[in-house]
Amino acid sequence: MSVNNTLSIFALGGINEIGKNMYVIEYGDDLVIVDCGAKFADEALLGIDLIIPDITYLQQNEHKIRGLVVTHGHEDHIGGIPYFLKKLNVPIYATRFTLGLIELKLKEHKLLRESTLIEIHSESQLDFGEIKVNFFRTSHSIPDCLGIVFNTPEGNVVHTGDFKFDLTPVNDQYSDIHKMANIGEEGVLVLISESTNAERPGLTPSEREVGSHIEEAFLNATGKIIISTFASNVNRVQQIVHATIKSNRKLALLGRSMLNVVKVARQRGYVDIPDWLLIDARDVKQHPPDRVVVLCTGSQGEPLAALSRLSTNNNRDVKVLQDDTVIFAASPIPGNEKDVSKIVDNLFQLGANVIYGSSKITGMHVSGHGYQEDLKLMLTLMKPKYFIPIHGEYRMLHLHRILAETVGVERENTFIIRNGDVVDVQHGEARQTRKVQAGDTYVDGVGDDEIGDIVLRDRRQLSEEGMLVIVCTINKEDGKRISEPDSISRGFVYAKNSEELLFNINEVVKATVDPFKDANVLGMKRAIKKEVGQYVFEQTKKKPMILPIIIPI
Amino acid sequence: MSVNNTLSIFALGGINEIGKNMYVIEYGDDLVIVDCGAKFADEALLGIDLIIPDITYLQQNEHKIRGLVVTHGHEDHIGGIPYFLKKLNVPIYATRFTLGLIELKLKEHKLLRESTLIEIHSESQLDFGEIKVNFFRTSHSIPDCLGIVFNTPEGNVVHTGDFKFDLTPVNDQYSDIHKMANIGEEGVLVLISESTNAERPGLTPSEREVGSHIEEAFLNATGKIIISTFASNVNRVQQIVHATIKSNRKLALLGRSMLNVVKVARQRGYVDIPDWLLIDARDVKQHPPDRVVVLCTGSQGEPLAALSRLSTNNNRDVKVLQDDTVIFAASPIPGNEKDVSKIVDNLFQLGANVIYGSSKITGMHVSGHGYQEDLKLMLTLMKPKYFIPIHGEYRMLHLHRILAETVGVERENTFIIRNGDVVDVQHGEARQTRKVQAGDTYVDGVGDDEIGDIVLRDRRQLSEEGMLVIVCTINKEDGKRISEPDSISRGFVYAKNSEELLFNINEVVKATVDPFKDANVLGMKRAIKKEVGQYVFEQTKKKPMILPIIIPI
Repeated sequence: MSVNNTLSIFALGGINEIGKNMYVIEYGDDLVIVDCGAKFADEALLGIDLIIPDITYLQQNEHKIRGLVVTHGHEDHIGGIPYFLKKLNVPIYATRFTLGLIELKLKEHKLLRESTLIEIHSESQLDFGEIKVNFFRTSHSIPDCLGIVFNTPEGNVVHTGDFKFDLTPVNDQYSDIHKMANIGEEGVLVLISESTNAERPGLTPSEREVGSHIEEAFLNATGKIIISTFASNVNRVQQIVHATIKSNRKLALLGRSMLNVVKVARQRGYVDIPDWLLIDARDVKQHPPDRVVVLCTGSQGEPLAALSRLSTNNNRDVKVLQDDTVIFAASPIPGNEKDVSKIVDNLFQLGANVIYGSSKITGMHVSGHGYQEDLKLMLTLMKPKYFIPIHGEYRMLHLHRILAETVGVERENTFIIRNGDVVDVQHGEARQTRKVQAGDTYVDGVGDDEIGDIVLRDRRQLSEEGMLVIVCTINKEDGKRISEPDSISRGFVYAKNSEELLFNINEVVKATVDPFKDANVLGMKRAIKKEVGQYVFEQTKKKPMILPIIIPI
Repeated sequence: MSVNNTLSIFALGGINEIGKNMYVIEYGDDLVIVDCGAKFADEALLGIDLIIPDITYLQQNEHKIRGLVVTHGHEDHIGGIPYFLKKLNVPIYATRFTLGLIELKLKEHKLLRESTLIEIHSESQLDFGEIKVNFFRTSHSIPDCLGIVFNTPEGNVVHTGDFKFDLTPVNDQYSDIHKMANIGEEGVLVLISESTNAERPGLTPSEREVGSHIEEAFLNATGKIIISTFASNVNRVQQIVHATIKSNRKLALLGRSMLNVVKVARQRGYVDIPDWLLIDARDVKQHPPDRVVVLCTGSQGEPLAALSRLSTNNNRDVKVLQDDTVIFAASPIPGNEKDVSKIVDNLFQLGANVIYGSSKITGMHVSGHGYQEDLKLMLTLMKPKYFIPIHGEYRMLHLHRILAETVGVERENTFIIRNGDVVDVQHGEARQTRKVQAGDTYVDGVGDDEIGDIVLRDRRQLSEEGMLVIVCTINKEDGKRISEPDSISRGFVYAKNSEELLFNINEVVKATVDPFKDANVLGMKRAIKKEVGQYVFEQTKKKPMILPIIIPI
């Protein structure tokens, strides 16, 4: 065992954001990565599909990496894996169900063959040099989740993964509270705990509560039932299966990810759906409406998902009819409300009975993330010396720190870090002083290109102001203008309504180019940008991108 | 009185949306307009500032217009007035406070002198030919609101404006329930009623409830208090004034619209603020923090408003210090949650105590729009034969219809219309069969330009895919290429990383142009668009806008 090594803990993603989780535990020459998530870009990032962590630090320290351990199979924890594996060939450790979802992803990217995937379970023990790894079971809105204990020469570091405490879970997905208590008894130097619901008072309701509301709605429905939830919430799918059987209906699955994830869950034993219950979506119309349930994707209003297509009756096989019941068995994630509302509007227009809105009223959703009392219970079980709240925006981390104080963690022992901030522990004392490179990497189009800030800045300008291409030919000897300049606008003004403006712009171009005494193309371009830019701004208060093209002949 | 005339009712804005309200009541040669609102564009409309109603129909029927009657002074009811007045010179009728806000707007647009503004109150009677107009007082989140009764040869049409029933309002802003009851007794042919909160069960809480929570927070605060609300919610401002006095503090106003609206409200007697209470924002730092309240704009997270600047300590005069209390006395309007969250994060980072989030927990906001029981009470008072739910997205109109059924309106007597759909009444019978032109008019930049769909479509493509300008000179006689083609990309790929792609694109251009036997510029452009488009899509899965520029010399 080395004597002067430092235990270092940091995030490459997941702090001050919900998404692209990636955490690193490093001791001497051993480095373990936790999770490799992605985040969906918001509309401000034009044309960007996905954001993944900047892994420059890992590329620079490739020789130290012992493995990537994955806590569970949600996108914000596994979505970055294909892009990560294209750059770093690292063995991946995950539970049976999580691996199933990772494999789906790698197949899509044609990366499955060359990847090293190692199945673990809550009792596995991994030996990564000076870092030994143990696990404990947690409850969350997806099966087979793990919390992680890193046994290091400096002491034990616990990473909770995402969790809630569900005392009456579906499919026996209990949190292993006894093991957590033992870990706490043994001593926890640093607790790294998720903060998603640190703003919400109380204890998260049990997943089982959703089941009874689903059952009630199913028994009351007179027409077809269409119900939408997250495909990965296999325990909710299980409850939908039970309610389908109880209401004497058949079940059809709709939407690619629903079919894929349910297939993985059935094959691996995480959901129990009898074969006789299932019908093909193509056969829905051959059954009486009151004998069918359609379980589909799209509860977040995703425009290309099954539910959105159903709401405009654009699905070939399944039509929404008068008196059908459509159930949103998932609350909208912040930012998705408008897309969901649009779908609700459309479904009402088709004559459906729609169950949507606040889960406090419908009872059709509970969170997978622990509320304040869950978070305090985890802190109480672990009794950490140091605490690092993760997986949340700043206000959540801040409130999580206050919660930690109320259960005995010293205020100065909580580190509210940013992505890249390193907490170093030496001789049992933690300090936060240095940074490693961290940030957003944008994935665009098919996903193999990472694009930069310049391209994005251009897109922003193009999108709001449009552009103006100005073409002019000059004599290559003396710089004399040969042709009338030509101005082409896109996204700026509509040419038909703006003949006068475009005519005047050409006059400005002539007045700018003609005084030049030689074929100074660069000088002309600069002058045109400046003069035309000023003129256009005065006239329209817009700043289109101006692209002068000077052709010396 | 003419015999064969028709009473026509329709919306030019406000249906299937929250925003740009504009309704028309027409009988024979008399036409009255209700409200002229604007709507903020969402991010999908790139670079668009404001959306106002398409008023083509009104321009075509200018000779019939008797007046524009305004129910109250919110943006979605008055925001379109300056643009409207530039096209149609129509007298505007509104209450004293509403007129004050309209005047602010017209001053900004330098339109005040030539406008005809006529002050009315709840007991005014207007005579517009065959249409006589009366009013009744309503409660809402802004002072001096009106409901309208149109007395026509076919019968009475009631337009509610925006309303709630607040039995303990601030500043005596009572709904005139007795007058409403009388109107109902007299007989209502058509009720046009707002639907904003048709999804929410119960009765809207009273504005007075907010006051007690504000007072409690003020008395508990130890440092400076910064409180943000809608400037136009003058009754909430009044309660903040009371709490400021009670907690022995001085009051500073911050933000242009807060200063403007409070000035109008004080001048016209809608809010009572003693002079000695007010201090200038510049003097805040000269007072002990626990003796000051700063009342500011920006509760919706608007990036340029006062609160946003305070949250990054970018205000010259007022700084947020450790232990200051910042209160959001307004819930985020759907779509604004992310902007608000960002500000909360920043304020916590400055060490402030922030009171934000669900008004059910904070008590710092109540809605100005009636919940389901308020809507039922209005329907019950008016006992209409026909019902037109307005001011809401489809699901709200739909649920409002169901509410109307529960209090006795026949289902087939409710018309769920779209903007432009006309409800015609003849011989006491209403039918909906025809349409007039209606839609969105976009206001861009300084606001005098209306831009079209083509420009917007271009912006959308530019913003997501970028563009590629391809320049090539050819011989004007035989079409032979003279120069190497040149490709310039913006917002598509970053040239430095894409030399190979741009080189290959030029090869495609050459292979496309060279087979031409004459200077067919149009043909070459089309061919380049097609061939380069295909090549680029194959290589990058992107579809940038391709702009070929062929110069014959």
